[in-house]
Amino acid sequence: MKILSNRGHDMPSSPIRKLVPFADKAVADGKHVYYLNIGQPDIKTPETFLNPIKNLDMPVVAYGPSAGFLSLRKKFAEYYQRFNMDVEADDILITTGGSEAIIFTLMAIMDIGDEVIIPEPFYTNYNGFAVQAGVNVVPIKSSIEDGFQLPPIESIREKITNKTRAIMICNPNNPTGYVYSKAEMEALRQIVLDNNLFLLTDEVYREFVYDGAEHISAMHLKGIEDRVIMLDSVSKRYSACGARIGMIVSKNHEVIESALKFGMARLCPPSIEQVGCEAAVDTPDSYFEEVIIEYKKRRDLMVSLLREIPGVVCPNPKGAFYLVCKLPVDDADKFAQWMLTDFSVNNATMMMAPANGFYATEGLGKDEVRIAYVLNTDDIKKSIHILAEGLKAYPGKL
Amino acid sequence: MKILSNRGHDMPSSPIRKLVPFADKAVADGKHVYYLNIGQPDIKTPETFLNPIKNLDMPVVAYGPSAGFLSLRKKFAEYYQRFNMDVEADDILITTGGSEAIIFTLMAIMDIGDEVIIPEPFYTNYNGFAVQAGVNVVPIKSSIEDGFQLPPIESIREKITNKTRAIMICNPNNPTGYVYSKAEMEALRQIVLDNNLFLLTDEVYREFVYDGAEHISAMHLKGIEDRVIMLDSVSKRYSACGARIGMIVSKNHEVIESALKFGMARLCPPSIEQVGCEAAVDTPDSYFEEVIIEYKKRRDLMVSLLREIPGVVCPNPKGAFYLVCKLPVDDADKFAQWMLTDFSVNNATMMMAPANGFYATEGLGKDEVRIAYVLNTDDIKKSIHILAEGLKAYPGKL
Repeated sequence: MKILSNRGHDMPSSPIRKLVPFADKAVADGKHVYYLNIGQPDIKTPETFLNPIKNLDMPVVAYGPSAGFLSLRKKFAEYYQRFNMDVEADDILITTGGSEAIIFTLMAIMDIGDEVIIPEPFYTNYNGFAVQAGVNVVPIKSSIEDGFQLPPIESIREKITNKTRAIMICNPNNPTGYVYSKAEMEALRQIVLDNNLFLLTDEVYREFVYDGAEHISAMHLKGIEDRVIMLDSVSKRYSACGARIGMIVSKNHEVIESALKFGMARLCPPSIEQVGCEAAVDTPDSYFEEVIIEYKKRRDLMVSLLREIPGVVCPNPKGAFYLVCKLPVDDADKFAQWMLTDFSVNNATMMMAPANGFYATEGLGKDEVRIAYVLNTDDIKKSIHILAEGLKAYPGKL
Repeated sequence: MKILSNRGHDMPSSPIRKLVPFADKAVADGKHVYYLNIGQPDIKTPETFLNPIKNLDMPVVAYGPSAGFLSLRKKFAEYYQRFNMDVEADDILITTGGSEAIIFTLMAIMDIGDEVIIPEPFYTNYNGFAVQAGVNVVPIKSSIEDGFQLPPIESIREKITNKTRAIMICNPNNPTGYVYSKAEMEALRQIVLDNNLFLLTDEVYREFVYDGAEHISAMHLKGIEDRVIMLDSVSKRYSACGARIGMIVSKNHEVIESALKFGMARLCPPSIEQVGCEAAVDTPDSYFEEVIIEYKKRRDLMVSLLREIPGVVCPNPKGAFYLVCKLPVDDADKFAQWMLTDFSVNNATMMMAPANGFYATEGLGKDEVRIAYVLNTDDIKKSIHILAEGLKAYPGKL
C-alpha cells in the first residue's frame, strides 16, 4: 500500500541538517563536535530583543493580525528607510521566518509547473520550498573559479521560457558569501524589465558585508519597483534565528495582498517574538559594529587557514558568514559523514554541510562543502586543524 | 500583464477575517464592536505558560530542532497519555501552529490532484490549505436540522474515488460544536479500513466538551493506528493562540518522517513559545475546570438568547466554543457586513463569521453564521441584543 505522496518522497533532505544524526551519535559517544554546518551564530541576542519579552505584558497571548502587528511593520519601515529604501508599513507583510516569506511569494506569483531561475549554488531550502509550491527551479551555474559571481547574463537569457516567472537571488549570498556588484544588479534589472519577470531578492545578510563592499539592494533599482519582491528575516540580523520572524517587502500591493491571503489561512505569525523584534529595531549601531568586526576577523582567519591546506580552493567572500570551498576528496558528502563517524583529534571532530545539496544540477558541488564561520576564533582554529588532519587521513583523498 | 498566479487568485478569503476592514472602519468611526467572528478566547493565558517566558534564560535565541524540542515532545506525550492515548515523543512532530500541521500532513500523504473527504461545514481554512497543497476537498453535507451529526456513512462511501487519500474530521467540531459519538467514530474506523484511507483528526478543542459528553479520539480506535494522523495545537487549550505551536501525532513513523522533511526546510518552530508550552502542560486541572464551567455558562446563555429570536434556528452544541445558527435573512454574508457598516445600538455593533465560507459546496450556508462564544456573559447579552435588533431592522430580512 502506498503511504506517502510523491511530493513527500521528492522533498530533499537538507544538507545542512541531514548529517545531524551522525553528529548526535558522535556526541553520544563522548566526542566534542564543532558545528560549522549551520548558520547558527554564537553571537548573543541583543538585550533590546530580549528585554521586552522578559517584561511581557500580554495577559492573553492572542492572535495578532495576519499581516503582523502594525506597530512592528511601521518599525521595520523605519529600519529600511535607514538603507535608503522607499518602504512604508503597507509594503510589508510579516511572515513566520524568511522560509514562509519565500513559500508565500512562490505561491502568490507562480502556478504549478512555473519556473524560477536561480544561480547555483543556492540556499538549499529553496529546493524544498519549490517542491512544496509545485514549481521548478531552473539553475544557472556560478563557479568557484570566478568567486561565484553572477553567471554571464546571456546564460540567464537562454534559460527563459514561457513558464519563467521570476529570477531569484540571495545577496549577500548563502552559501557562497558573494556580494553582487552594481553592474550585476543593473544587468538583472534589465533582464527582468525585458522579460516581464519578478526579481525575488533574499537579503537576510544585508548587515554582513566586509572590506567596505557596498550592498546594492534590489529595492534600490529604478523602474522595476513593481517587479521586486524582497524576502527578509530578523534571524541573522539580531541573532534571533529561533524567533521565526520574517517579512515580504514589495511596492507591488497586488503581491502583498495575495500573499496576505495565504497569511490569513495560517492566522498570524508568532505574537511574542514580534514584541521582541519591534524593540530590536532600535538596537544601537555599536552592536552591529562589534558583530561585523568579529565576523570579519573570523572570515579572515577561516580563509587563511583553509588556504594553507594543500589542495583546498577557497574564495574570499565579501558577505554573509559562509563560504564554499573545494576539498581534495572523492566525495565531500562521504567525507563530511566520515569526519563524524570515523575521525577525531583529541576526541573532537567537526561538521560541515556537503555543497552538492546547494546545487540543483546533479553532480555539481561534489567536491565542495559549505562552511559557516559562526564560531569564535579559537574554535575556528581547532576545527580547521581537525579538518586538515582529516584530509590527510581520509581514504578517499585525491 | 499577469501579475499573480491562479493559485493566488484561488486562495479563498477567510470568512473569519474578511469583514475585519469593515469592523476596523466601525471602530475608527467611534463604534464599539463585539467580536464573535473569531475563536479568540478572552480567557487569560495561564501563568504556567507565561512565567518561563518572563524568566527566559536563552542568551542566544537559536534554531531549535526541526521536530521541536525533545523535552517538549516528551512533555506532550505525557499529556496525551492522560487521555489514554498511546503516544510517545517519537510519535510527535512540533509544528508552527495547527495550520502548519495540516499543510505538512496534506503534502506528506497527498499528491497534486488527490482528494480528501471532509464533512461540511468545516473549519474554513482547510480550503486555503488545500489550495496551497494543490489537493481537492470533497465535501459531504452535514445539516443543521440533524445538529450537524456525521452524514450517513453511505454518502461518504459514494464519494470515494481512486484519488481519495483521506477522510478528515474536526472533533469537537469547528464551526458546529458537534462532538462525534462512539458509533460515528466506529463507522469512520470501518470505512478507513475498508478503503485504505488515512483518518485525519483535528482535535484542538479536546478539552472543551460539555454536559458530560465523552470525547472519543481517533487515537482510541483499534486496528487503524497506522492510518490515524492527529492534528493538534496549544492555541485553545492554554488560550495561547498567538503562540503558534501545534503538532502532528501519529504512530505511522513514515508519515512523521516525511512531514519532518517539510519541517527541516522551514528549520524550526518558534523557540520562545515552545518554552512556554513545555511548562504549560503542568497547568493544574483547576484551570481547565474553571474554563469549562465558564464556557458552558456562555454556551447555555448564547443558545437560549438565540432561540428567543424569531426565525433563528440554533442547535445546542456539545463542544468547542462555536455554533452555527440559521438566521431569517436573504444573505448572511451581506447581513454580517451590514451589521458593521449600517447598524448599531447605543453606538455598538457585533461581528459574526458568515457560514457560507465554511462550506465547499457553492450556495450552502447562505443563511447561516458561525458565532464564537468567547466573550463574557455580559458582552454576550449585549451583542445578541444588538443581533436581535439588527434582524428587525435589516432590509433583507425574511
